[in-house]
Amino acid sequence: MMKRIGIMTSGGDAPGMNAAIRAVARKAMHEGLEVFGINYGFAGLVAGDIFQMTAQSVNDTIKRGGTMLYSARYPEFAQEEGQLKGIEQLNKFGIEALVVIGGDGSYHGALRLTEHGYNAIGLPGTIDNDIPYTDFTIGFDTSVNTVVEAIDRLQDTAASHERTFVVEVMGRGAGDIALWAGVAGAASDVIIPEHDFDVKKVAEKLRASREAGQKHAVIVLAEGVMHADEFAKELSAYGDFQLRSTVLGHVVRGGSPTARDRVLASEMGAYAVELLLEGKGGLAIGIQNNKLVNHNMLDLFDAKHEAQLDLYDLAHDLSI
Amino acid sequence: MMKRIGIMTSGGDAPGMNAAIRAVARKAMHEGLEVFGINYGFAGLVAGDIFQMTAQSVNDTIKRGGTMLYSARYPEFAQEEGQLKGIEQLNKFGIEALVVIGGDGSYHGALRLTEHGYNAIGLPGTIDNDIPYTDFTIGFDTSVNTVVEAIDRLQDTAASHERTFVVEVMGRGAGDIALWAGVAGAASDVIIPEHDFDVKKVAEKLRASREAGQKHAVIVLAEGVMHADEFAKELSAYGDFQLRSTVLGHVVRGGSPTARDRVLASEMGAYAVELLLEGKGGLAIGIQNNKLVNHNMLDLFDAKHEAQLDLYDLAHDLSI
Amino acid sequence: MMKRIGIMTSGGDAPGMNAAIRAVARKAMHEGLEVFGINYGFAGLVAGDIFQMTAQSVNDTIKRGGTMLYSARYPEFAQEEGQLKGIEQLNKFGIEALVVIGGDGSYHGALRLTEHGYNAIGLPGTIDNDIPYTDFTIGFDTSVNTVVEAIDRLQDTAASHERTFVVEVMGRGAGDIALWAGVAGAASDVIIPEHDFDVKKVAEKLRASREAGQKHAVIVLAEGVMHADEFAKELSAYGDFQLRSTVLGHVVRGGSPTARDRVLASEMGAYAVELLLEGKGGLAIGIQNNKLVNHNMLDLFDAKHEAQLDLYDLAHDLSI
Amino acid sequence: MMKRIGIMTSGGDAPGMNAAIRAVARKAMHEGLEVFGINYGFAGLVAGDIFQMTAQSVNDTIKRGGTMLYSARYPEFAQEEGQLKGIEQLNKFGIEALVVIGGDGSYHGALRLTEHGYNAIGLPGTIDNDIPYTDFTIGFDTSVNTVVEAIDRLQDTAASHERTFVVEVMGRGAGDIALWAGVAGAASDVIIPEHDFDVKKVAEKLRASREAGQKHAVIVLAEGVMHADEFAKELSAYGDFQLRSTVLGHVVRGGSPTARDRVLASEMGAYAVELLLEGKGGLAIGIQNNKLVNHNMLDLFDAKHEAQLDLYDLAHDLSI
Repeated sequence: MMKRIGIMTSGGDAPGMNAAIRAVARKAMHEGLEVFGINYGFAGLVAGDIFQMTAQSVNDTIKRGGTMLYSARYPEFAQEEGQLKGIEQLNKFGIEALVVIGGDGSYHGALRLTEHGYNAIGLPGTIDNDIPYTDFTIGFDTSVNTVVEAIDRLQDTAASHERTFVVEVMGRGAGDIALWAGVAGAASDVIIPEHDFDVKKVAEKLRASREAGQKHAVIVLAEGVMHADEFAKELSAYGDFQLRSTVLGHVVRGGSPTARDRVLASEMGAYAVELLLEGKGGLAIGIQNNKLVNHNMLDLFDAKHEAQLDLYDLAHDLSI
Repeated sequence: MMKRIGIMTSGGDAPGMNAAIRAVARKAMHEGLEVFGINYGFAGLVAGDIFQMTAQSVNDTIKRGGTMLYSARYPEFAQEEGQLKGIEQLNKFGIEALVVIGGDGSYHGALRLTEHGYNAIGLPGTIDNDIPYTDFTIGFDTSVNTVVEAIDRLQDTAASHERTFVVEVMGRGAGDIALWAGVAGAASDVIIPEHDFDVKKVAEKLRASREAGQKHAVIVLAEGVMHADEFAKELSAYGDFQLRSTVLGHVVRGGSPTARDRVLASEMGAYAVELLLEGKGGLAIGIQNNKLVNHNMLDLFDAKHEAQLDLYDLAHDLSI
Repeated sequence: MMKRIGIMTSGGDAPGMNAAIRAVARKAMHEGLEVFGINYGFAGLVAGDIFQMTAQSVNDTIKRGGTMLYSARYPEFAQEEGQLKGIEQLNKFGIEALVVIGGDGSYHGALRLTEHGYNAIGLPGTIDNDIPYTDFTIGFDTSVNTVVEAIDRLQDTAASHERTFVVEVMGRGAGDIALWAGVAGAASDVIIPEHDFDVKKVAEKLRASREAGQKHAVIVLAEGVMHADEFAKELSAYGDFQLRSTVLGHVVRGGSPTARDRVLASEMGAYAVELLLEGKGGLAIGIQNNKLVNHNMLDLFDAKHEAQLDLYDLAHDLSI
Repeated sequence: MMKRIGIMTSGGDAPGMNAAIRAVARKAMHEGLEVFGINYGFAGLVAGDIFQMTAQSVNDTIKRGGTMLYSARYPEFAQEEGQLKGIEQLNKFGIEALVVIGGDGSYHGALRLTEHGYNAIGLPGTIDNDIPYTDFTIGFDTSVNTVVEAIDRLQDTAASHERTFVVEVMGRGAGDIALWAGVAGAASDVIIPEHDFDVKKVAEKLRASREAGQKHAVIVLAEGVMHADEFAKELSAYGDFQLRSTVLGHVVRGGSPTARDRVLASEMGAYAVELLLEGKGGLAIGIQNNKLVNHNMLDLFDAKHEAQLDLYDLAHDLSI
């Protein structure tokens, strides 16, 4: 019978990670387990930066952005030497299984531990929504809302001066943040890596829109396509749209998580503990069709997150 | 071939209604239709308070709370006399079909119009999330976030003074707002109409929690159960928990919609136009398992929105 | 030469108290002093709930609502017995002087300690803005913004349904929150304890406003006048204004402080340390005419915070 | 006896401009005047883009960012030819005097009109707080709060990864936004144009701070000093601080104004009308020592906004 589990966050931080940590810790304690927090992801595991958590450790943390367990890059864990050092620490603290919250990069380490006999469950924690086999990742909803709030602000100033803003948003290779924020922010165009585009048509649409009376616009550009300045330069070749470009950087990673992210993180965290209690490991949790699911981590490595191209069409239909 | 459609909002306002209006209008125009806004719901229909919309009518409206088409109660539309007057106006303006955004109460009027040969599609617009055959209604996500923000604030003051707050939240007969806000707000207890409860156990949990070191708490109470003052009185019979009660009233109905509500409203609005273009009517749109769906309005009248009791258990497991 | 000072918060919590605590602690350490946090105000002082702070104790606290040092009522400190116990603890920890952040009620205790030879400086920490000799208190700006955000939300729903909302806001005997929020929230009327009012005239204005085309309204009512329900009842005797009443309770006490409150708290906290270093005590800090000031606490006890009646006139002129 | 006044906004938009427009319009109507809105600043004046406002024109505008009267650059108004065309339009509409809301650049045009016999009063509307003879400009408080919110978010992600962020903020030649946001955001350093700095000392402080246990930091850099990337490059020469740089661009210009900005704009707008009614012109309104003041515009052209260097010292003392 399993007695002790560990929790860590790995990769880029995302709002809702603390809600997930809380859920794992509280659910595990509710089930009679002891819970250990591992600081700084796999780096901290190897270094033994590990502490026992109490129910009070996660008081008043659900609303905080970032991760109370810190995060760090640690490519050395790809080597067996790193893994063995990590296992030594797990043994030292009596940790039999663990939950890893992070991007799919972190799942490689989790899978290695599972293969060594230490069941590990992965939770998708990233703002980019670029993990396969899940419709949503923890942090995505918060990030989209932060971007939309910024777009709302830009619309004010765009309207006052009849400007066109090109807004570059995060998402690495995925266009999800751009798509959601584009629809919700009433963007006149959304440019994503998963769909081709034609700068000339973007320009024609802007011109038609201006002629029809809407003299300001916001174009949302996923960072995976190109830089905002570059796009603005290309666009300005087709006319004077009073262009300004702006890059929403790390600001959209932080902040108090939305209700949606907190609930999703709570559900996933509790589910991870249930899977561990069933003796399972090497699984990545997701939400698909509004149901919690799990898939073998190996399957994720071959798969690719699918772009939500229906939103792409919607964004363009509604901007007329 | 259909040429003109109308849009109205009916029942209590909800954040995202303007996003839905925009989506219906823009999608319809994109498909070559003419669009008429009907002010004040069925009352305005009967009175002929109707105007033609342009693409610019819905500029910069997506971020606004409330409804730009106003809303009003109008029980007289249950009578055939009211309906015939409404149809007279539809004929006068050449409106052949319409979209009604509102609670399921508004679907009765929509169904009557469909029966008279004017196809009507219903969109679930209410913060209460109490409509059958949809997992989420337009406005629910915003409202939950507003409640959670209030709970976050109360947690600050509760922690400073080691108090217990009983927070009464809207939702009519449904506990959905309470459940989501309870999980996301780290409530120590959530009391909803769909589940029985025992005040004595609530008190015991509070006491155990205080003894374990968490000296403040927030209890979320759905308005469908009882008044916050009443609950606080019952609870105080079991001990001194430094109780304060607060009622989050109409404040949680307004405000700029979240990204999620804007996207949901946009998707549903566009889908409604597609259904009308297919010659359909008498249908209520929903989202189930993350897919847009439609059901016959008649089916809704016999059905009941199901409580999300898994969240109930989650809320209680995580508050230990 | 003074070496050790203490800090406490007393009375109702207010946003910005943590910023003040941080400022006192950091400024004192910058000047080479040792700093002790006293939990739970005068109650904690008497009980010896005291701990040494480090520069890191106040990391990442500036943005948090509430008070990290907790607060509590402790009327027993009015008795010399309580005071002597408190002094015993000060001696035990070697604390020579202290800063008390709270309402003017807390200044009595601070003055007693000063008389006993332990210099104490008072900082005005309360949302109510009801302390004499200061134009603004720490927490007031945040609270006003929270109320205004709520009014903005109510305006959405009021406009959609052509309603009139009566919003009761905190402030104890003072109308400052109501006045500021009334002007900033475009209230049609503001009712405060410091100015007489005539319900009939309020009704006439509402009627005129509705006839002129503005069919919704928000009336801001200071809690020091009467209850919102009571006011709504009186008002409804003069006509049907689609009245709803709502009470913004403890929600407006919490939340992350505004920039203004953080800066004010930081300035006042640093100034308090400077005064202590000059060997002064028994002084209450304020801001008047945009300058930091200090007054003898004794003077405050005879004085009364002045209402900002120019804002009263402004609110009414602008609502026409 | 004056009967008709005009209002315009000029220069960069700022949150609170709509509150100022509302205040001028409503106060003037309250005093029996007719009010005309002039779109697009001096460009619109010359083009005759002018319309009569009603009390309802400014309903529900107080909470909106940007300017409902639009703004535009129009250097041609420096020439007498432009001025005469503007005067022609004033005569055509019977406008005898006007209020200009904008930066001090707009005051030149306002002064020219006054010299021609059309009294003009200037209101300081800019986020930069760089106008002489006023402690605060309309829009500054909102902008600072937006920046602080962004810094709070960055602190989350900085803490999770033990990073140092260099945040570049607006302000043109003035360091006010940087100073206020630096104090309120608990920045470890604030770099402004009005004060020299030494990158080496910034690095030493970071190192000391890291050694003392605070492993993350935010440095606020005014745009008037240099670019964030450039600063980060210079700083990185002194050690590895896990630097990231981010530029908060136009996002901080928009958004719903804070209560403070709404109240300030309302007071200034009403005061402008009072001055016009007294037959005065060529005056710039300000707030100094918490009192409304006015100065001859000519005086402003020779003066310079003073940096708040006391805040500079405070920021550095409190970051230890």
